[in-house]
Amino acid sequence: MTDNKDILLKRFENINCLNRKNMDNAKAHWNNIAKPLHSLGELEEIIIKIAGIQSRENIDISKKLVIIMCADNGIVEENISQAGSEVTAIVTENFAKGIASINHMAKYVGADVLPVDIGVARDIKNKLVLNKKISYGTKNFAKEDAMSKEEALEAIEIGISLVEEYKNKGYTIIGTGEMGIGNTTTSAAICSVLLSLPVETTTGKGAGLSNAGLEHKKYIIRKAVLERAPDKKDVLDVLAKLGGFDIAGLCGVFLGGAIYGIPVVIDGLISSTAALIAYILDNRVRDYMLASHMSKEPAACHIMERLSLKPIIDAGLSLGEGSGACMLFSMLDMAVAVYNANSTFSDIAIDAYEEF
Amino acid sequence: MTDNKDILLKRFENINCLNRKNMDNAKAHWNNIAKPLHSLGELEEIIIKIAGIQSRENIDISKKLVIIMCADNGIVEENISQAGSEVTAIVTENFAKGIASINHMAKYVGADVLPVDIGVARDIKNKLVLNKKISYGTKNFAKEDAMSKEEALEAIEIGISLVEEYKNKGYTIIGTGEMGIGNTTTSAAICSVLLSLPVETTTGKGAGLSNAGLEHKKYIIRKAVLERAPDKKDVLDVLAKLGGFDIAGLCGVFLGGAIYGIPVVIDGLISSTAALIAYILDNRVRDYMLASHMSKEPAACHIMERLSLKPIIDAGLSLGEGSGACMLFSMLDMAVAVYNANSTFSDIAIDAYEEF
Repeated sequence: MTDNKDILLKRFENINCLNRKNMDNAKAHWNNIAKPLHSLGELEEIIIKIAGIQSRENIDISKKLVIIMCADNGIVEENISQAGSEVTAIVTENFAKGIASINHMAKYVGADVLPVDIGVARDIKNKLVLNKKISYGTKNFAKEDAMSKEEALEAIEIGISLVEEYKNKGYTIIGTGEMGIGNTTTSAAICSVLLSLPVETTTGKGAGLSNAGLEHKKYIIRKAVLERAPDKKDVLDVLAKLGGFDIAGLCGVFLGGAIYGIPVVIDGLISSTAALIAYILDNRVRDYMLASHMSKEPAACHIMERLSLKPIIDAGLSLGEGSGACMLFSMLDMAVAVYNANSTFSDIAIDAYEEF
Repeated sequence: MTDNKDILLKRFENINCLNRKNMDNAKAHWNNIAKPLHSLGELEEIIIKIAGIQSRENIDISKKLVIIMCADNGIVEENISQAGSEVTAIVTENFAKGIASINHMAKYVGADVLPVDIGVARDIKNKLVLNKKISYGTKNFAKEDAMSKEEALEAIEIGISLVEEYKNKGYTIIGTGEMGIGNTTTSAAICSVLLSLPVETTTGKGAGLSNAGLEHKKYIIRKAVLERAPDKKDVLDVLAKLGGFDIAGLCGVFLGGAIYGIPVVIDGLISSTAALIAYILDNRVRDYMLASHMSKEPAACHIMERLSLKPIIDAGLSLGEGSGACMLFSMLDMAVAVYNANSTFSDIAIDAYEEF
């Protein structure tokens, strides 16, 4: 185990600081575009960040990928979700068939969708789902550790390797998605521990629990966290004990973004939880993360606060799958269109605005 | 004057309530789509609202128009903006040339851009700018009324008629944009009066004033509002005394949306101010308004509160031109793609989620 953890930590040596010169150039470029200074607000900041990530001269987010980590969670045995585990496999196959919600949204923004079976509870029949299955779902963390640390490291490694592979294929921005019944439960548990927040504060209704169902979910999480007693100073211990494979895999995607220098968009609660873990493993990873929307799940705002990131979409979304990431893609595409069109003050014969 | 006001009020008789049956059907349709209930959050609500506006069976927002009302403001004499009035005409012509920020964004979402000269201070040379000029800019409201009530009514009528005309051309959704140096000043003044808020609360830096510039702008607005002494119970008096033609024209666009049954998207502060005036003229107009983003200008949040509308984008935008409206267009397009794709629970062989 220690060996594999060492290998992971060694990878972090390849994380570079953002390219300050590129960022200064991007800022100067924005200020030279014929419009009031800073008038595209936080979108300008995000584009400047992307300039710091990408080493090329122009901003390029034209080739987009949504990586959807799909996995089941043993905790579903405890009746913490409205849907059963069988739904995970069905929706995972629907991603490959192109008929899930995310497919329609990704098509709109010209993003490719890559569903990854990193731990679905049954075999996936569709070959367009990438088979990276670690196990047939995690264990029930109310009774035992969700996974071993070895498995957690393996899932992280899968995420990192995918980023390397798809960056080499020419992708220039990655969105994070997930599918896994029970994964608002694993996320709420992890956030409660890592952010030192009571379970009441981090737990929401997920995909539509009743009020009684929500109380039961909180009870199960509270009890399970106490019994697993993860070491909050050891983020891999927290991840392994509480799960799931989707979170671990997405954590790898965020780490991969920093290691291979490609911007990665955070989506909803599960994705945010993975981002938090990646950030705790190495704070520099945050520089490569772009926030998209503020999930309706209550833990999300606490994670964003910890990451010092501010999502620019606040629409009460709770769909997952990478849906919020796709929405950010479209807004970024529009900002890049303005940025790259390069209509400067001299082009249009008016004086530049002055900075105060 | 009274005659024309009566004609306007008579038009309001054509405003219908939203079609409740269509809305119920749309809600039922959302709940039957294979995804967790309400998981597209406020986007689902907006689509349901559009269903209530459109009489057709399916939601159609495919043919999009951004109406940009362009006008100058006499108050610019008082040195309340960084840029001079000459910029209004230049940018207005740039809309027609397709090289302004909004053109790039509109192109991305497939929206057409209609720049309207409703009161630019010089003649516009480009024939692609619709000539509806009422006057060469408003008067300086620090010294005299910005316009007559007749002119205010004329500007409103222009907005209403454009909606009628473009609805007949097949457009199914309209975004509101504006260009007019000095129009955060007119908007802040109007909002201060209509919302009974101190000028300090409604006035921002617009297109980049210094701190000293902001103080001067507040001073000018405070003084001018006192001198004009508009009757806050007579919204047309407030509009006419404080200006501008862009706000009056956009007010007409919002009214036209309600009269002719087409959703109209609110953009930034100036557009929001126009929406507020339209709402005060007839509260039912709000049913036809869609909020897009929360402008960086401080009055915007107070208007949204008064309108009980919640923008789903919060990115510190202050560009105007209809830029935030275009961003909402893309998010709505994605939501409609999911809605119209119609992958139901039975299609994908899983049980529907239950409502609690």
